[in-house]
Amino acid sequence: MNGNRFGRLFQVTTFGESHGEAMGCTVSGCPAGLELSEDDIQGDLDRRKPGQSMITTSRGEPDAVSIKSGVQDGYTTGTPIGMVIQNKDARSGKYEPFITAPRPSHGDFTYSAKFGTRNWGGGGRSSARETVNWVAAGAIAKKLLAREGIELKAHVNQIGDVEAPAVSFEEMLEHSEENDVRCAHPETADEMQDLIADYQEEGDSIGGSIYFEAQGVPVGLGAPRFDSLSARLGQAMMAIPATSAFEFGLGTEAAEWTGKDRNDDWEFDDEGNPTPVENDHGGIQGGISSGEPIYGEVTLHAPTSIPKTQQTADWETGELKEEKVIGRHDPVLPPRGVPVVEAMLALTLVDFMLLSGRLNPDRVDDQPGEYDTEYHPSNPNNQ
Amino acid sequence: MNGNRFGRLFQVTTFGESHGEAMGCTVSGCPAGLELSEDDIQGDLDRRKPGQSMITTSRGEPDAVSIKSGVQDGYTTGTPIGMVIQNKDARSGKYEPFITAPRPSHGDFTYSAKFGTRNWGGGGRSSARETVNWVAAGAIAKKLLAREGIELKAHVNQIGDVEAPAVSFEEMLEHSEENDVRCAHPETADEMQDLIADYQEEGDSIGGSIYFEAQGVPVGLGAPRFDSLSARLGQAMMAIPATSAFEFGLGTEAAEWTGKDRNDDWEFDDEGNPTPVENDHGGIQGGISSGEPIYGEVTLHAPTSIPKTQQTADWETGELKEEKVIGRHDPVLPPRGVPVVEAMLALTLVDFMLLSGRLNPDRVDDQPGEYDTEYHPSNPNNQ
Amino acid sequence: MNGNRFGRLFQVTTFGESHGEAMGCTVSGCPAGLELSEDDIQGDLDRRKPGQSMITTSRGEPDAVSIKSGVQDGYTTGTPIGMVIQNKDARSGKYEPFITAPRPSHGDFTYSAKFGTRNWGGGGRSSARETVNWVAAGAIAKKLLAREGIELKAHVNQIGDVEAPAVSFEEMLEHSEENDVRCAHPETADEMQDLIADYQEEGDSIGGSIYFEAQGVPVGLGAPRFDSLSARLGQAMMAIPATSAFEFGLGTEAAEWTGKDRNDDWEFDDEGNPTPVENDHGGIQGGISSGEPIYGEVTLHAPTSIPKTQQTADWETGELKEEKVIGRHDPVLPPRGVPVVEAMLALTLVDFMLLSGRLNPDRVDDQPGEYDTEYHPSNPNNQ
Amino acid sequence: MNGNRFGRLFQVTTFGESHGEAMGCTVSGCPAGLELSEDDIQGDLDRRKPGQSMITTSRGEPDAVSIKSGVQDGYTTGTPIGMVIQNKDARSGKYEPFITAPRPSHGDFTYSAKFGTRNWGGGGRSSARETVNWVAAGAIAKKLLAREGIELKAHVNQIGDVEAPAVSFEEMLEHSEENDVRCAHPETADEMQDLIADYQEEGDSIGGSIYFEAQGVPVGLGAPRFDSLSARLGQAMMAIPATSAFEFGLGTEAAEWTGKDRNDDWEFDDEGNPTPVENDHGGIQGGISSGEPIYGEVTLHAPTSIPKTQQTADWETGELKEEKVIGRHDPVLPPRGVPVVEAMLALTLVDFMLLSGRLNPDRVDDQPGEYDTEYHPSNPNNQ
Repeated sequence: MNGNRFGRLFQVTTFGESHGEAMGCTVSGCPAGLELSEDDIQGDLDRRKPGQSMITTSRGEPDAVSIKSGVQDGYTTGTPIGMVIQNKDARSGKYEPFITAPRPSHGDFTYSAKFGTRNWGGGGRSSARETVNWVAAGAIAKKLLAREGIELKAHVNQIGDVEAPAVSFEEMLEHSEENDVRCAHPETADEMQDLIADYQEEGDSIGGSIYFEAQGVPVGLGAPRFDSLSARLGQAMMAIPATSAFEFGLGTEAAEWTGKDRNDDWEFDDEGNPTPVENDHGGIQGGISSGEPIYGEVTLHAPTSIPKTQQTADWETGELKEEKVIGRHDPVLPPRGVPVVEAMLALTLVDFMLLSGRLNPDRVDDQPGEYDTEYHPSNPNNQ
Repeated sequence: MNGNRFGRLFQVTTFGESHGEAMGCTVSGCPAGLELSEDDIQGDLDRRKPGQSMITTSRGEPDAVSIKSGVQDGYTTGTPIGMVIQNKDARSGKYEPFITAPRPSHGDFTYSAKFGTRNWGGGGRSSARETVNWVAAGAIAKKLLAREGIELKAHVNQIGDVEAPAVSFEEMLEHSEENDVRCAHPETADEMQDLIADYQEEGDSIGGSIYFEAQGVPVGLGAPRFDSLSARLGQAMMAIPATSAFEFGLGTEAAEWTGKDRNDDWEFDDEGNPTPVENDHGGIQGGISSGEPIYGEVTLHAPTSIPKTQQTADWETGELKEEKVIGRHDPVLPPRGVPVVEAMLALTLVDFMLLSGRLNPDRVDDQPGEYDTEYHPSNPNNQ
Repeated sequence: MNGNRFGRLFQVTTFGESHGEAMGCTVSGCPAGLELSEDDIQGDLDRRKPGQSMITTSRGEPDAVSIKSGVQDGYTTGTPIGMVIQNKDARSGKYEPFITAPRPSHGDFTYSAKFGTRNWGGGGRSSARETVNWVAAGAIAKKLLAREGIELKAHVNQIGDVEAPAVSFEEMLEHSEENDVRCAHPETADEMQDLIADYQEEGDSIGGSIYFEAQGVPVGLGAPRFDSLSARLGQAMMAIPATSAFEFGLGTEAAEWTGKDRNDDWEFDDEGNPTPVENDHGGIQGGISSGEPIYGEVTLHAPTSIPKTQQTADWETGELKEEKVIGRHDPVLPPRGVPVVEAMLALTLVDFMLLSGRLNPDRVDDQPGEYDTEYHPSNPNNQ
Repeated sequence: MNGNRFGRLFQVTTFGESHGEAMGCTVSGCPAGLELSEDDIQGDLDRRKPGQSMITTSRGEPDAVSIKSGVQDGYTTGTPIGMVIQNKDARSGKYEPFITAPRPSHGDFTYSAKFGTRNWGGGGRSSARETVNWVAAGAIAKKLLAREGIELKAHVNQIGDVEAPAVSFEEMLEHSEENDVRCAHPETADEMQDLIADYQEEGDSIGGSIYFEAQGVPVGLGAPRFDSLSARLGQAMMAIPATSAFEFGLGTEAAEWTGKDRNDDWEFDDEGNPTPVENDHGGIQGGISSGEPIYGEVTLHAPTSIPKTQQTADWETGELKEEKVIGRHDPVLPPRGVPVVEAMLALTLVDFMLLSGRLNPDRVDDQPGEYDTEYHPSNPNNQ
């Protein structure tokens, strides 16, 4: 099993290696009638792509997506959406010292040991380049969610020991894309940038974390226990390369809170329905969305590819050797990770919107089950 | 859900429409170390492709497969194999009379009613063009099976009322590819060909059936009851466009056999193990392979696209109208269906070889679980 | 993998062996608010149970179902429904001659070879006793379908060479349960009964087939290609023990029909929507339901357990031996298979009703996606 | 979808509500030939069960497991293992004030809103009582893993602001079950116990966390990216009721580590294979196990059921009201959570042992694929 599929009803299936010919993914389960073009997807790909700033790898990938199927006359047809993204700037030569020796803390060793073969081109399948597929698929999920009033956003809230103060969702929307580090708190962003520059200068890298939030999520998403909303978000986020922690709501802090403090009392909302007074529960209760904003955090460790000298063990010569990982790498992962976290959040939510019957699995424009028998020569929206 | 995935451990995920830009599939779960190139796949694609003889559609598709990932230095890497096949000769104009009216017994109506949109290009996703993906994936499965001593073959055993006598597996191997109709019994093949020509001449089409057989299948494949080998073959074969029946062993004839006649007594084989005296059970007992050849039959109805005048109902004008389906279509499906049936048989068997632990899911060259810690700079076979 | 789960959204997971302590199944995905008691299920269990007539095994099982979870105050809660059925009349002693030798054409050999252990109690897991679970789960599916106007029925249309003429759905409803053989054509039922008695008398058994039909199925069910409605029905029906063929629509006969004859022209229905003039397509076009009745046939071979002497190979002694299968067995399978076929049909259809958004996955009483925020102390229907 | 199934090849399917008749689970995919009795399972159930100490709820459940299928003569048969655990001490009366009003931060509101029905008995399906099923299934997984040299253990490493120092795996094995709080550091355990008593006295509850570790895990487990070992552990652990964070390796701390510091250099082990000098990576690299111990942490928030007065909103009367959650509840979750975390860890690992071919899916005693044709009257181990 390759673990290259995500989702139960909105399914993404991916292929591609860092230095292979192309990346690609197939999105199954997208309802018909969604207006969709490559432009809708390219925006997020550009946010993820390498070479966009000083603090990202200089690999020059245009990351232009090509939709091969599932769209006709500008609207989805309800059938699988095949997408391909060419790899243009793969230069495997750079990795040569590590062909017979694993890079420290990379997937080189585990992949080689598992498959009995060394995919020496830039980490092959273990490379974070794979996430280009996720972002492409996530862009479609976001469009579907937006129609239902669900908005989501992520920003970088920590780099090394520099932490951003809490920001509002509106601040995230407004500021997080204004700076290279993608932190929604401008002053902190400057500090982060300086810190990154320092580490970059000394040939090192640094960890950080990403805060995410989704607004407008209806009550009732989640299939506890094994597919509770929190469990599926846990899988989704921990699938992201370099993650070492997933938190939602109070996260690790919850260990120190009492029940009385953490519990959210109930009051009535304007329509007379129960609504929690606070949101210490992070928008999920009993594994199901409560209608409150869903928020949480993902920790990404420092990039393992660093120009500093490290020790590796050459299995061919049987010698230890000191090597630097030359190549084009990010000094820090969260800035480019922001669209990836958003994509995984969107893919998880859209899947549950389908699983809970809130999205019509066949057509975006109708209520589920309301199949009239008007047959359109092409998409009705397109007339 | 798009129903575009087949297999539990050896998974094929497909995309593409008849007149879209490209077809494609991703094969997950193929172990590393299998020697594989596009040539290994092209042979079967050529057997399936249109325009190969007078009795196939004249659509001119080279059906050249391009492997985008999962292969390095001529060997699989154990990671997803992405494949793309361009559509070259799509001429949608031909279908115009049917844009606002469904072709009789096609998927036009049901697809349009389900998705609220008319994918008017040659049947879109409902076209049998999709099976190009299956044949590509099936070619990889066949290669894996062949390493384990499993051989499989199909041939056309009925067209209209012309039925071939029973032939041996060896005859199938020898003769089925010698004639355009792919019947392993040469005299019958001639008769079939004449019959097809007759129907073709009068602007009609005709049904038929395909017999399949697999040899060398080990005892123990199948996960009864819901995933018994027969149940999964049933799904696999009934997924093929235009199928209306699936049989294994005695098939429908079994209704008339007594227990005493149908039951296969036991004797000992040369190694002193129980082996059935006959194979009326079709190689599957209790839903699990018995070690005997697995054989069965798939019925394909006549192609629905015929140049004869038929009545349709135009939902835009509200008028009934008489139309001919112009286009490029096969007068009979089984000849091009042979590689498709083989592909689905291979995909089902290889999946169970993995599920039963008979194939190492990670590497072809080792026993499962025997992971030594020699790390190869590239594939070991390649040195 | 045990292959003990069926369904994507309406999932049945089963356990139990013929002579074990109990059978049981868990139904996941049943929406909340369905009125349900053990009585709703018992009726179908009684139709399947042994000992109900001269032509069924004399094993005396009350087959009383006990619901352990998922129902509160007479209504489903939307959570998993656990059901247990005790085995009361297991007498394994009867199978002793076959403990070290496989019964002809049973699953004894394949199960033993696969698992390395002989589950000698009445066939263990390979016994058709497992289908008691399917019928229990199917009864819930039927109740859900009935709310949506979908009715389904099966009857025995062939025993040996005695075939029933075509009967209408109404005749099936009226007559199929009037006689022990469950054939809706009374005169044929008598003939069948005589034939069975003859075979029973000579210590033999005989095959047969079951015709099924579903009415009121809406347009749009099915997820072609791999999960087309026909593919999933194929899997469902071929999972039934002793099946050797599955057909829908014209079935194997389609091989001899021309396109012109088989194609169903279009006309308009009373509401001005396209509707096929005939239903040679069996209610499925392009793998998706067309709104016409879905019909087909399942062939069940003769019971393998017969009192006639047969040869087996004793792996302990290394001797061939002649044995009779003593025990309590049916002389023919279709009569008790009728509720099993209905159950698998219902389970397949209800799954697609959920997959296509036509059933609200969370609550039966609302449209999907219409989650109001009225909270009920218990089920609203119950007040 | 009910989200009541975990695992791809080793699958657990559960049912049951807190105050229903019984809990139960079906384990599919356990190979044949494993010696297994109820005693093997009862030990872990006793560690999880209520009423075992002053710091657990006083609900008196014997939690006696009954195996209904899948075991014959003391060995597994390779077929589904059905287990049932009766609920004995359900007293729903206690929850009455909350029948028409949701308890703060419980699943009452979200379940009711989703399913339109109030399962008022002790939280119904949302109750942590469900985890009794997981522990039962996990005990089988542990037995399989132990045969392969994989050992795992968890202990409570934090309650409120009391944190245990790092302990060795041996200390965990030796000390974690010596005290009620299940902390492997005895002095800290005393402190924790005092802290819990304080909160209990004031009618409040407190959060905490559990550290887990697995030793002997072979290189090569995991199916990155979406089913990487870390992603699946993330899902498994976040499925546990009351979790709000999952970490592995350095966890959230990784945000502050540089690449140079976090990266683990390579050296050679005694057999000349590369092995990491340290284990800051937590036993997982590139989503695949590295052969080093796998360790991590799960945060559990404070129990939401507290005797302190809290505000709720009665949807029937439309009034806010102040209520105490009377009932029998734990003042802290980690102590009883320890066997649950171990169970989810074991279930995740055993699934990957099967997925990577390291466990024979059919029989424990043979290498996968080595199916000899000796047929055993019963389990060979049993002779």
